[in-house]
Amino acid sequence: MTDRFTFTIAATDGRARTGAIAMRRGTIRTPAFMPVGTAATVKAMRMEEVRAAGADIILGNTYHLMLRPGAERIARLGGLHRFGGWERPILTDSGGYQVMSLSDLTKVTEEGVSFKSHLDGSRHLLSPERSIEIQRLLGSDIVMQFDQLVPTTAPIEEQRGAMQRSIRWARRSREEFDRGGTHAAGAALFGIQQGALDEGMRRASAEGLQEIGFDGYAVGGLAVGEGQEAMLACLDYAPGQMPEDKPRYLMGVGKPDDIVEAVRRGIDMFDCVLPTRSGRTGQAFTADGPINLRNARFAEDQEPIEPGCPCPACTGYSRAYVHHLVRSGEILGAMLMTQHNIWFYQRMMQDLRDAIAAGGLKPHAVRFLARYRQRAAA
Amino acid sequence: MTDRFTFTIAATDGRARTGAIAMRRGTIRTPAFMPVGTAATVKAMRMEEVRAAGADIILGNTYHLMLRPGAERIARLGGLHRFGGWERPILTDSGGYQVMSLSDLTKVTEEGVSFKSHLDGSRHLLSPERSIEIQRLLGSDIVMQFDQLVPTTAPIEEQRGAMQRSIRWARRSREEFDRGGTHAAGAALFGIQQGALDEGMRRASAEGLQEIGFDGYAVGGLAVGEGQEAMLACLDYAPGQMPEDKPRYLMGVGKPDDIVEAVRRGIDMFDCVLPTRSGRTGQAFTADGPINLRNARFAEDQEPIEPGCPCPACTGYSRAYVHHLVRSGEILGAMLMTQHNIWFYQRMMQDLRDAIAAGGLKPHAVRFLARYRQRAAA
Repeated sequence: MTDRFTFTIAATDGRARTGAIAMRRGTIRTPAFMPVGTAATVKAMRMEEVRAAGADIILGNTYHLMLRPGAERIARLGGLHRFGGWERPILTDSGGYQVMSLSDLTKVTEEGVSFKSHLDGSRHLLSPERSIEIQRLLGSDIVMQFDQLVPTTAPIEEQRGAMQRSIRWARRSREEFDRGGTHAAGAALFGIQQGALDEGMRRASAEGLQEIGFDGYAVGGLAVGEGQEAMLACLDYAPGQMPEDKPRYLMGVGKPDDIVEAVRRGIDMFDCVLPTRSGRTGQAFTADGPINLRNARFAEDQEPIEPGCPCPACTGYSRAYVHHLVRSGEILGAMLMTQHNIWFYQRMMQDLRDAIAAGGLKPHAVRFLARYRQRAAA
Repeated sequence: MTDRFTFTIAATDGRARTGAIAMRRGTIRTPAFMPVGTAATVKAMRMEEVRAAGADIILGNTYHLMLRPGAERIARLGGLHRFGGWERPILTDSGGYQVMSLSDLTKVTEEGVSFKSHLDGSRHLLSPERSIEIQRLLGSDIVMQFDQLVPTTAPIEEQRGAMQRSIRWARRSREEFDRGGTHAAGAALFGIQQGALDEGMRRASAEGLQEIGFDGYAVGGLAVGEGQEAMLACLDYAPGQMPEDKPRYLMGVGKPDDIVEAVRRGIDMFDCVLPTRSGRTGQAFTADGPINLRNARFAEDQEPIEPGCPCPACTGYSRAYVHHLVRSGEILGAMLMTQHNIWFYQRMMQDLRDAIAAGGLKPHAVRFLARYRQRAAA
């Protein structure tokens, strides 16, 4: 372990890269998938199970944690790592996305976003300064700048305005982060590229961020309903607009095939609620595509959730049993399904890392995608 | 392990006994507490965690399992042990209690109880023969006779009628159980004493059952609203009406202080949903009495749920964290709370077994009860 944040690329294959981020609290193998621990818990899992699945880093949500139990409270309790029992790196988002999607009566000004809590209606302000302060109170290892999001359906001028404001907020985030002693040594700050699906706006955003300078760069504003084709078209150019020697993080993505396609386009980090949320609704990810264990055809199926999967859910239980649990609304159903899905995602990332290191990403990706998508095509 | 069901009393202290039931699939240390696995899962726990807590045997519910996923289905899937991943002994109830408390439009005749499922309104019949058949299909190790329950508020003649019918049903249960090849070698059959709070009726019931002959005897019809004082008054005589050399099982009991008092009166086996159900509502059992982790006073409490408890929930997490999880409705809250409560119950049973073996049950019980009840008195 080290107190300096370093990103080392061990091998490339086309635009894809594999390597490691070394930082305080541990090393993150890339490309990496970060399980989402919204409220200081990866839902339905123990942290030791998350680690056993292969996760090097998890994500925490500023918006949720500031409202409950509160950032100052977590700080008094020794920080998010100690609070939730996860000693490895944590990336926290800035709250910008959730404040727009979850809260009521939001009002956006140059200062920041004022909003009413979706929990109790209390009034709050999130600004670049407050977002960075909250992430410091949480003890975040990778801090995200505060940015402004507008719906993808908004007029282009509104998109441009939000992109430009996000650069101004990126600078304020950087300044707040750099203020003496606010962050423990070795914490990293990432900027977030905006610019909707417009190559020129994306370029302007990337240039504005690089002028300020960050430890890593995120592609924001994607996977918000534009569809996979439009997203991948954007990823054909967006990662290349960011520095080669810094980690690139595609926020909120995604489905397994999204991730494989994004890795091929040079993305190093991902987060998504899909494996955990799906686990609570009966959807399991498998190499042959997603299946829903609620389906009556699994009622007497003695196979594991995914034959051949080494996870504790698959080695211990049958589809028939998980089907029964899911149908009965049993907590153990959510526990087993979530565990399998997190293992599936982590194994998928390991396979991608191995394929890049071996120089065989393209055939691996073609094979993976053909098999994964066959069920949809059938 | 053995295929013969044997109950050995290693030590007695007053009316209390400690020993072991040796049977197929494992040994049950007595006095024993059986976690309730209603729908083939001890809610919010993995079976390996249930075992790690010290449980030698769990309970399954005939009523729930016959309705979902169905007894014939479980049989086709290899039985309840294989289905749920628990290889040690399982006791199944007869469905008599749940059919009266959960289902609709029940109609009781000498043949049995016909009722509508609380899940989908489908019509079913439970009779002594069908109950025993279901328990055979599940692969139960300890099978309970089918009995008739009436509310404790029913007139005495109705109580007497139900008690007498329960003896007739005990005989039919015995006959169905003994029919060649219906049960694997080594499964045991228990009779259930009824008779409300009337010593004479309890005696008549016990005598009727012993005439038929069972491997163990349950005290039924208690802990259904009569209050602790009335229950303990009944337990002053009811266990002594049953054979000394067979296990005595107090069904559906209970709170920790109920269990300590019942052990002192000669009870060997218990089951109750309290530790698991309470775990899902924020109530934790501790040696100093129950506490509710939802309470605001725990919001910044860095102690474990119960200081000194060796369970994985207490060694890994703070009350402040569990408080946050419970308040947030997080599944992990139910997981940690349930795990602690099951550990608490199993440790309590071990302490009782040790105290009886050492001839010190009375001072142990006095100390335990004084400490456990002090919070209620304060």
